[in-house]
Amino acid sequence: MKCLFDNINEWKVIQDKIEIKENRLAESIMSIGNGYMGMRGNYEERYSGDSHRGSYIAGVWFPDKTRVGWWKNGYPEYFGKIPNSVNYIGIRIFIDGVELDLEKCNVENFYRELDMKNGILKRKFTVNINGKKFEANITRFLSVSVKELAVIKYDIKALNSSAKIKFIPYLDSNIKNEDSNYEEEFWNAVSSSSSEYRGNILSRTKENTFKTPIFTVGATMHIKTRGKVDDISYLSTDNYCENSITMDVLENETIGIEKYVTITSTRDYSENELLKKCDDILNIEISKEYEEILNEHTKLWNKRWESADIKIEGDKSSQQGIRYNLFQLFSTYYGEDSRLNIGPKGFTGEKYGGATYWDTEAYCLPVYLGVADKSVARNLLVYRYNQLKQAKDNAKKLGLKGALYPMVTFDGVECHNEWEITFEEIHRNGSIVYAIYNYTNYTGDFGYIKEKGIDVIVEVARFWASRVHLSTRKDLYMIHGVTGPNEYENNINNNWYTNYIAKWCLEYAVENVLKLKKEHSECVERNNVSLEEIEIWRIISKKMYLPYDEELQIIVQNDNFLDKEFIEVKDLPKENLPLNQKWSWDKILRSCFIKQADVLQGIYYFGNMFTKEEKKRNFDFYEKYTVHESSLSSSVYSIIASEVDDLKKAYELYSRTARLDLDNYNNDTNDGLHITSMSGSWLSIIHGFAGMRTWNETLSFEPKLPQEWNNYSFNINYRDNNIHVDVYSNLIKIENLKGKPIKIIVYGEEYVLEKSIEINRSKLK
Amino acid sequence: MKCLFDNINEWKVIQDKIEIKENRLAESIMSIGNGYMGMRGNYEERYSGDSHRGSYIAGVWFPDKTRVGWWKNGYPEYFGKIPNSVNYIGIRIFIDGVELDLEKCNVENFYRELDMKNGILKRKFTVNINGKKFEANITRFLSVSVKELAVIKYDIKALNSSAKIKFIPYLDSNIKNEDSNYEEEFWNAVSSSSSEYRGNILSRTKENTFKTPIFTVGATMHIKTRGKVDDISYLSTDNYCENSITMDVLENETIGIEKYVTITSTRDYSENELLKKCDDILNIEISKEYEEILNEHTKLWNKRWESADIKIEGDKSSQQGIRYNLFQLFSTYYGEDSRLNIGPKGFTGEKYGGATYWDTEAYCLPVYLGVADKSVARNLLVYRYNQLKQAKDNAKKLGLKGALYPMVTFDGVECHNEWEITFEEIHRNGSIVYAIYNYTNYTGDFGYIKEKGIDVIVEVARFWASRVHLSTRKDLYMIHGVTGPNEYENNINNNWYTNYIAKWCLEYAVENVLKLKKEHSECVERNNVSLEEIEIWRIISKKMYLPYDEELQIIVQNDNFLDKEFIEVKDLPKENLPLNQKWSWDKILRSCFIKQADVLQGIYYFGNMFTKEEKKRNFDFYEKYTVHESSLSSSVYSIIASEVDDLKKAYELYSRTARLDLDNYNNDTNDGLHITSMSGSWLSIIHGFAGMRTWNETLSFEPKLPQEWNNYSFNINYRDNNIHVDVYSNLIKIENLKGKPIKIIVYGEEYVLEKSIEINRSKLK
Repeated sequence: MKCLFDNINEWKVIQDKIEIKENRLAESIMSIGNGYMGMRGNYEERYSGDSHRGSYIAGVWFPDKTRVGWWKNGYPEYFGKIPNSVNYIGIRIFIDGVELDLEKCNVENFYRELDMKNGILKRKFTVNINGKKFEANITRFLSVSVKELAVIKYDIKALNSSAKIKFIPYLDSNIKNEDSNYEEEFWNAVSSSSSEYRGNILSRTKENTFKTPIFTVGATMHIKTRGKVDDISYLSTDNYCENSITMDVLENETIGIEKYVTITSTRDYSENELLKKCDDILNIEISKEYEEILNEHTKLWNKRWESADIKIEGDKSSQQGIRYNLFQLFSTYYGEDSRLNIGPKGFTGEKYGGATYWDTEAYCLPVYLGVADKSVARNLLVYRYNQLKQAKDNAKKLGLKGALYPMVTFDGVECHNEWEITFEEIHRNGSIVYAIYNYTNYTGDFGYIKEKGIDVIVEVARFWASRVHLSTRKDLYMIHGVTGPNEYENNINNNWYTNYIAKWCLEYAVENVLKLKKEHSECVERNNVSLEEIEIWRIISKKMYLPYDEELQIIVQNDNFLDKEFIEVKDLPKENLPLNQKWSWDKILRSCFIKQADVLQGIYYFGNMFTKEEKKRNFDFYEKYTVHESSLSSSVYSIIASEVDDLKKAYELYSRTARLDLDNYNNDTNDGLHITSMSGSWLSIIHGFAGMRTWNETLSFEPKLPQEWNNYSFNINYRDNNIHVDVYSNLIKIENLKGKPIKIIVYGEEYVLEKSIEINRSKLK
Repeated sequence: MKCLFDNINEWKVIQDKIEIKENRLAESIMSIGNGYMGMRGNYEERYSGDSHRGSYIAGVWFPDKTRVGWWKNGYPEYFGKIPNSVNYIGIRIFIDGVELDLEKCNVENFYRELDMKNGILKRKFTVNINGKKFEANITRFLSVSVKELAVIKYDIKALNSSAKIKFIPYLDSNIKNEDSNYEEEFWNAVSSSSSEYRGNILSRTKENTFKTPIFTVGATMHIKTRGKVDDISYLSTDNYCENSITMDVLENETIGIEKYVTITSTRDYSENELLKKCDDILNIEISKEYEEILNEHTKLWNKRWESADIKIEGDKSSQQGIRYNLFQLFSTYYGEDSRLNIGPKGFTGEKYGGATYWDTEAYCLPVYLGVADKSVARNLLVYRYNQLKQAKDNAKKLGLKGALYPMVTFDGVECHNEWEITFEEIHRNGSIVYAIYNYTNYTGDFGYIKEKGIDVIVEVARFWASRVHLSTRKDLYMIHGVTGPNEYENNINNNWYTNYIAKWCLEYAVENVLKLKKEHSECVERNNVSLEEIEIWRIISKKMYLPYDEELQIIVQNDNFLDKEFIEVKDLPKENLPLNQKWSWDKILRSCFIKQADVLQGIYYFGNMFTKEEKKRNFDFYEKYTVHESSLSSSVYSIIASEVDDLKKAYELYSRTARLDLDNYNNDTNDGLHITSMSGSWLSIIHGFAGMRTWNETLSFEPKLPQEWNNYSFNINYRDNNIHVDVYSNLIKIENLKGKPIKIIVYGEEYVLEKSIEINRSKLK
């Protein structure tokens, strides 16, 4: 796969050939989005080869009737999916009556680039039609300045003769999901109309029996032409509208069209306002020149990079990888809307469905804390707070108290239906609270806990208190029947990570309730927490069973884990990998192989509770059995590897994270990008190589440089400061770009960072 | 529910009222079958109320496309189902132009009885049509003398006036399964035709992509009339044919028709012969009088009862229960055809699909050993032997050696797709070998092992040898990731029952291979068993880990079981039961509650390996946590309860087994009868109360009498003897009805049974 994008550029992803067989992969890689909407890298023209046409609108979802073999009590009735929606990029092209089809026509000099610095997708190629040669130049972007706006500029130059060119820009809402359990359609046409240079369309998600919201989406297009128009006509049907514009092009002349589209939905407006809003926004935008609109857009992308960019010298592929990950992460979510979250495939595919997984809290939130305004992370917390009622209903369904956040959801209602995940992968509940701690500790803003967070903290504590049981024989609290982060074991007893985070949640609840009781007792009262309840939480957390092996001096992943047969991944014949494609499920489950960080996830989360030696012992024990078949795994292992000074391993695992999609490591990028795990490469650098931590509300670094790099540097927002860190092999420069002097710790030594400090590592030793 | 059948008769099941709401339940209870075909107790006439019309032909099956949420490697592609097939009982009745519909018409004096002694379903009622009263009398049976033959006699008597009666007997193959994953139809019409008093129809199961066999079924009807025929016409469409026969009935006169149907299928003949074969058989039968055909049928049922009946005095409901169970079991399977097996719902419903579960080996085979010719049990073994190749393929799919028999199957290919069952409930493999042991030990016929059995024994041993792993820490062989017979725990480690039966299978393989090596080495050679392999089996069986608790001195069901929270079933609020309807799956799984005999199943199978005290300790420990939510559970517990002298419990559990369907204990009999578990009530009496065992190839008894009964008696085939046992409270009479004198053990004392012996229990003590 590597060949398709192996022309590596630090700010661009370049595809310099067209590969019919790899079209889906290229479509995934060339995805763009602006947080409000997004799309796979489909062509504007007709393409008759294999393709997954996909465009998606954030927060618009559909409850697909669930499909399952054997029903269990408590299973959800539907699986929420982002419906593949209106195709608004489409432009059919006819040259002298021959339709331009990139699969069938004689295409040469194909070149496409994703300009990550500016958020633009560009493409050009030449095509030979009956001996006449033409060059096409196409630019597309989804504006981050006007979120409802999509812009396409399509130019054609006649290279060796004149010709008649027909452009048919259209809007089409006759769209089906590839992923639909019963091959049902998700959309109804409402209306469509067209006029000269203009067209619009209105479509509505089908009524459903689950009483989830119905969404209507409006789309309006406006066409500007460059060149002399010979003829124009238009038409519209139920779920389709087009303009048909014929222009003459002379030899060496360039003609073209600009297609401006605005998209609105009933998430923001009532249905009968939608088209008017589309028009209002569109009319303002089309009064501007193309270049002006583009500039407004790129300026904002440049601003994002100013605060978030990580520069790596000496390793172009690492550099491209981290930028690609940040680009796609920001294209999916930049925190403007607390009703939204970060789906595992963002706007780049349909697999997994759902909007929200624990990935958000565990992997994405720290990135936004580091590079964006704190309101972004806060919005992610508010999202969960707003779904507390549903989480309480969910716990009740399972016969439990408190709140259990769902594994997969749009609106807070559980969507997933494998019993071993839905009912048992409950550690996710811990990450919801951990994110509150993370935000509070990082920002110092206790206001969120006071206002909203305490309600979540209390209900999650109640959940754990009702989910544990006392083993009377051992006089310890236990949690049986769970699936840990390592989904390659199911329905296990006493997963250390789950027990540990449950214990921590209870302690954190006690701590915060007691703190609030003094100064803001209304927060405690509104949650009806009694002293008896606090006492119960305290007892459970004190007597929580945490599997540990005295002989090996390691944490034990769960009961019976050490009874397994142990084989190291390196000794496994290559043809067995990936296990999830090669082995039957039972064989995976009883094996020692670990899908993703489990004990290590806990050591990462609660890093201040373990010595470096403990971390090393556990890393050394578990790493050799870990197959990293979750996209979320390598980053955590990379961070701990840095911490325990195994930089070779840390770099190897970083690369796997950072170039997972660009290099199609798991051979599944054609389904879409691994958006949530993209945050992992930022973590691998900042928490990993640079060793940034914020324990006890103090910023600290322990920078290391992988030998493959000459230097790396990045900016970090920490509370009211903006700090620049520049790491060379022996020299560390830290600058205070914004904010008052601040106490920081580097390599364990305290400094007061006024303007800047330089630390010579060799002198430290 | 009890009210519908509470007119208890020792040889009949009587329904003396019509209950629209309970129609499905009544249809299940009134099912009849002859091993070759069978049907639910639907009415012949139109019935517009809620009904599940069902008739099924043994061995004719269809691969329904499997439906599942999340696919796992190794899942089967289809779920085999017995397709609901041609409706051949239908007779529409019009009286003076008004259609007789038991839901809509004014029906009185409804009476239906299932005559178990003779295998006949009878029904009568009066109906008032526009002031005229009529009495209907209907008899139906599926001949056990001519398996292809179904007979219905439908008489109408005019009670207070004359009338015009139209009978429309028909065949209809326009049939859909209630249970079809994608609501697909399973049948294609092939042909149909009709003539005066005659009609036939041919239908074929749809082509499928799974390359499983396609079946064609032929049906021919012949109508005889009693009374003067006024008019006759006939018609046929694609998948339907009828006769329409009008007759005049005078006041006090009885007229009627007899409908004779023969059914053939491509299991026995080629498609183009089917209708001819139907005709051939039908023509012979219709040359006889109705009474003659009926007599041939009832004679054979009477013969079955002669050898199999259990007489209970003093408890009509127990008596009816055991007879009902034997009646339905024999209606499903009487061993004539080694291509067939015993589906959990027989011919009485569609739920569960599949033909073959481990129920057959564990529960049904001992019954046939006791009451039928040994060829019946042998045929059940041959069925599995013939599917050895598929079982080897199945093991291979899971990356294992040897053979893994499927959980659910028609043709040997696994049909079931819950990973925790399909891949993990592997103890089933042990029962396949145990059945061979059981047959051999019971009959003394080692020939089966020599000819066929050893191949199965060897391949199952190979499976276990590849499925265990050595825990190097404990230097013991373990089996991780299984589901035991107690399906209320999944994916557990070291289920004692599974480990024990695996160990036993390995020992039994070593024993038989060594035995054959001496005298029939070709049997060993054809299976390529080396001395090294035998040695491995020996080592594994010696070092198999068997969880045991020294403190409680009980067998431990599986690892971590004793860490659970323990609550007794009696202390559980009633509204929690049945757990499988009230609790979420995770709550069930982590609870201490046991669905069905697990440790106790092992103690029952290997009863000679445990002392009475050990049995009692384990019974006492596990019984109180067992909810018996499998129909297979109560019988095993009842047997052990008898053994440890808890007769009160034994009787309670017997009743639950014997009247499970008649009393609709689990509130699910409307889906069909629990055919395979019906054998459990025979076991509860013979192995339980009468304490019959055959350890070391010696027949022994330890009879006890529940205080609810005055006396019980039964016959048993044991090798060449037929033995009658008669149990009174203090007196045991044992007669040798057939065969040479035989050594038997009663209450631990050896006797030589010449003609008969009498043992006075009070004198024994």
